[in-house]
Amino acid sequence: MCQLLSMNCNSTASIQFSFTGFSERGGHTSDHVDGWGIAFYEPTGSRLFIDDKPAYESPLARFVKGYEIKSKTVVAHIRKATQGEVGLANCHPFQREWLGQTWFFANNGDLRNYYPELSGPYFPIGSTDSERAFCYLMQVLSRAFKDCVRPPAWTEVAEVLFEAIAPITRHGNFNFTLTNGDALFVHCSSSLYEVNRQHPFPKARLVDVDVEMDLSAVNGTNDRMVVVATEPLTVDEPWTALQTGELRVYVGGELAHARVNPAVERFLVPTVSMRTQAKP
Amino acid sequence: MCQLLSMNCNSTASIQFSFTGFSERGGHTSDHVDGWGIAFYEPTGSRLFIDDKPAYESPLARFVKGYEIKSKTVVAHIRKATQGEVGLANCHPFQREWLGQTWFFANNGDLRNYYPELSGPYFPIGSTDSERAFCYLMQVLSRAFKDCVRPPAWTEVAEVLFEAIAPITRHGNFNFTLTNGDALFVHCSSSLYEVNRQHPFPKARLVDVDVEMDLSAVNGTNDRMVVVATEPLTVDEPWTALQTGELRVYVGGELAHARVNPAVERFLVPTVSMRTQAKP
Repeated sequence: MCQLLSMNCNSTASIQFSFTGFSERGGHTSDHVDGWGIAFYEPTGSRLFIDDKPAYESPLARFVKGYEIKSKTVVAHIRKATQGEVGLANCHPFQREWLGQTWFFANNGDLRNYYPELSGPYFPIGSTDSERAFCYLMQVLSRAFKDCVRPPAWTEVAEVLFEAIAPITRHGNFNFTLTNGDALFVHCSSSLYEVNRQHPFPKARLVDVDVEMDLSAVNGTNDRMVVVATEPLTVDEPWTALQTGELRVYVGGELAHARVNPAVERFLVPTVSMRTQAKP
Repeated sequence: MCQLLSMNCNSTASIQFSFTGFSERGGHTSDHVDGWGIAFYEPTGSRLFIDDKPAYESPLARFVKGYEIKSKTVVAHIRKATQGEVGLANCHPFQREWLGQTWFFANNGDLRNYYPELSGPYFPIGSTDSERAFCYLMQVLSRAFKDCVRPPAWTEVAEVLFEAIAPITRHGNFNFTLTNGDALFVHCSSSLYEVNRQHPFPKARLVDVDVEMDLSAVNGTNDRMVVVATEPLTVDEPWTALQTGELRVYVGGELAHARVNPAVERFLVPTVSMRTQAKP
């Protein structure tokens, strides 16, 4: 299993504070030591940083924490491998281009015996269940909108995603974040929490490390953002849990859409390693 | 116009020495100040670092120069914008996934009025002629091998590329490096130089900065590599020029294939900025 962190804002903001606490889970306050990644949508384009070293001791993670990158949307992930060896090709977020936009995907879950029929244009590079699910979702989207040469509206994407997710969730927990930088699509099977930040910004203290920050010092009165994570990152903010089967869409730093599929089950965390499971 | 640097090896090697000299051209020894990028194929996967700041003063370039990344294939680029604004989306190398492999592309040239018919699955994210050419080449490849679910042999790719390149070169100089990590495809219109390094490795001194390195200290007796750049990077190695219209393929650190198309023209460097040219 893994840990997810995402942010969506109405203007650009820094993820430094949240990422500082989050990366502690990569080998210090938690044993998610099998790599990490963070994708930023900055004003002039997107970029991704990944490393297969534990986030807590990765030189690249130290660089990212010290380098103020302001972005509208961020997707981050720290990995504890269940399927697929430790390596760069298996680090999330994964990325693909669709209709001239970069899409990033990060997943926390464990899809057992999940080998969807992939016939293009998206094929996995690594060997995780997560990347197979990502390729499948992008394949479904690219077919649903096969006559488009411009990206469809997020409302249309959400509708297609909602239907495509349900069959996947039968294979196990499927918590994910998926984004093209404009809309942040989030699905919860077992564990995701959301916090909204806007004026007046509070002081917040991280759960994972003794750091407190006055969020009003780094944000303007018109800034608005939502942060979503596998577990709350701060002790003194009102984090709320997403429901099992819930797909949420965040646009412009706030919730734009939420819909629950009651058929989605929450799986108990497996007690045996999925690394031993046979390929079909 | 821009500057290219690529390396292909029979085992993993560090690009630090060459990249140190190369990045000087991003604002110090040359005025290529509109961003830079470097893509690495490491043993467990690939990753890309891009920045829209000049390479010479970019904190991320400093990090990359100081962080020893060993890889079999590297593609690097520093940009002097001719078409497309300065920004992350216009930094080379560009990347796309095809048949489960990451392909990187970097280009030095200036394709005038080049708007190929793109109908998928690859569309440009930024606004450069280079990324349009990359999407077009990937579109041609994905159609030529549309029934494949595994990547074709480099020999087959080279054949399709050779035919696809010629019509593009009518729009201007088209020097590029393209790779899936295994084979490095290089095309020369106006300026590309190659140097081979193998045992016994020489001492080499960079052109752009007063740094000398004993290459035998960082390479083993069985290591073999080829470095390709827009202009020679060292003063005391036998760099050889590629011909106009030449497509070369490097595999395992050596030349595997070369073919010249005599119909390809070398254009004089334009004296007017292409930024002013009208879109169709």
